[in-house]
Amino acid sequence: MTADAPQVLIDGLQYCNWSREIFEEMRQGGLTAVHATVGYHEGFRETVRHLVDWRTRFRDNEDLILLARDAGDIERAQASNRTAIFLGLQNPMPIEDDIGLIEMLFDLGIRFMQLTYNNQSLLGCGWMEEEDSGITRMGREAIAEMNRLGMIIDLSHAGERTALEAISLSQKPVVVSHANPRWLRDSNRNVPRTVMQALRDKDGLLGLSLYPLHLPNGAETTLNQFGRMAAEASEIMGAERLGIGSDLCQGQPDGVVRWMREGRWTRQVQAMASFPPQPSWFGSNLDFAGLAEGLLSAGFGKAETASVLGAAWHRFIRTSLPAG
Amino acid sequence: MTADAPQVLIDGLQYCNWSREIFEEMRQGGLTAVHATVGYHEGFRETVRHLVDWRTRFRDNEDLILLARDAGDIERAQASNRTAIFLGLQNPMPIEDDIGLIEMLFDLGIRFMQLTYNNQSLLGCGWMEEEDSGITRMGREAIAEMNRLGMIIDLSHAGERTALEAISLSQKPVVVSHANPRWLRDSNRNVPRTVMQALRDKDGLLGLSLYPLHLPNGAETTLNQFGRMAAEASEIMGAERLGIGSDLCQGQPDGVVRWMREGRWTRQVQAMASFPPQPSWFGSNLDFAGLAEGLLSAGFGKAETASVLGAAWHRFIRTSLPAG
Repeated sequence: MTADAPQVLIDGLQYCNWSREIFEEMRQGGLTAVHATVGYHEGFRETVRHLVDWRTRFRDNEDLILLARDAGDIERAQASNRTAIFLGLQNPMPIEDDIGLIEMLFDLGIRFMQLTYNNQSLLGCGWMEEEDSGITRMGREAIAEMNRLGMIIDLSHAGERTALEAISLSQKPVVVSHANPRWLRDSNRNVPRTVMQALRDKDGLLGLSLYPLHLPNGAETTLNQFGRMAAEASEIMGAERLGIGSDLCQGQPDGVVRWMREGRWTRQVQAMASFPPQPSWFGSNLDFAGLAEGLLSAGFGKAETASVLGAAWHRFIRTSLPAG
Repeated sequence: MTADAPQVLIDGLQYCNWSREIFEEMRQGGLTAVHATVGYHEGFRETVRHLVDWRTRFRDNEDLILLARDAGDIERAQASNRTAIFLGLQNPMPIEDDIGLIEMLFDLGIRFMQLTYNNQSLLGCGWMEEEDSGITRMGREAIAEMNRLGMIIDLSHAGERTALEAISLSQKPVVVSHANPRWLRDSNRNVPRTVMQALRDKDGLLGLSLYPLHLPNGAETTLNQFGRMAAEASEIMGAERLGIGSDLCQGQPDGVVRWMREGRWTRQVQAMASFPPQPSWFGSNLDFAGLAEGLLSAGFGKAETASVLGAAWHRFIRTSLPAG
């Protein structure tokens, strides 16, 4: 990357309460691309309704954003001063028990899908189950189908065994789009060293999370501490396989955190009643480029910093998604 | 069209019991493209399941057929000795009451949609209702949306008023993919002179049907009589706006004719219990090119015959469907 080349900034996971204001902030923050979560616990029909809403957003904000299907759309967004939005799912509920729906959702624009979200799914096990029995029979089929289509497998929220088996079974590199090294924040939601090593060995990518519950000191984590966490992650992943997946949930009403955690699968209140406060230095897309300061202070070079803030995701997407 | 140019044969409507044998017959019959009906009374989710089945057919028979999205796919099929299959719906049930589903189905490959099938729909009125109150409020929105996307509006099975209003409202030419002049076979399922004239005035297309109940003398209709019927239709439409929509339902079990006619909207037996026999000279795709004999005998020139057997559909599709 030459000094004059325009910087590519990519956030590998957001689930904001989407609005024109947020898309304007993406532009002001210089975001080239964002992977946006479309849904969690919705079945196929509800997911399609969300996709229809996304089409309306793309039309209503066509001066700011575009629907991204491949790496070429990142470059198209950059050339037209817009943000490329990649759509993804944090749970395989939208494919129900129908392997053919993966292709249908791919054709409708979905480019990322998690195999699990916290709980057991039809494909594998989330990190909150007591026992992780690994990738299921349908999970093997779904991995092969995602490989065939070029839909990116995301192992965020997976259990360790499920994640390791998925990495091993997949014929293509996979990602953990938004999680931090587990040993720096004792939550099984974060990613263990074993999974990071396996990811690296298969040329996968880890997106570092800014969600306070994933950070070493929660909302009190400083930007420099974030940089040092990134440096530790980089020791395993290398800066070329390290990105950001901020997990930004800007502007979401508090009920949404319960939807994410509880879906419709329980009558018990499981989650906190509201989103936790963000670190002072990361509250919106306006703060994204500022992450460079934390990385540079932790010893990342300029090119490494550029990699973590976007170039790594750009390369990964270019090699993963088929050109439309 | 020069003498050596390969003949383009296009059938504007079939609803066969799809199988490799039928696709092989398409190739043996020299069919360049076929518009295949995906469904009638199915809601969105069921329709998507049919589309998944079609994807499997395309993969299992990729040496014979391909999924066609635009006119370029007709040429691609011709160049690779395959048949281009355009997918369509004979009823708007698959979009339910959600205007956004038109775009979703377009993205999944649907290129034709009827506004009605015999009965009142949410968009307009079919020919079997006692009173046709024309295009509905949602119908106007659907026509505009189909125009925006480039999905072809098909008025087969529509009532006269609905058809005339749709032709008038549409900003793009529309089709009656499979019907014959009403005055040659007294069935309101066939197309009245008024609709043919309006179609012609808006550069639309009429596909002549080979379904026995639409033919002047049913299954007893001769090939020459078919040619003379085509000549009468051509007096209004011109050969450049006249095609074939055979309505071939080859190999369908008898229950399917009841599904087509009764769907799930009635507990009464409305329809005959089985498909009527076909004319002896048109029983499969193998007989398609033979229609030329009837047209030539009725006075069509060579170029006009080529138009009716495919060039008119080819031109219509080229000007109607956006290049993917």
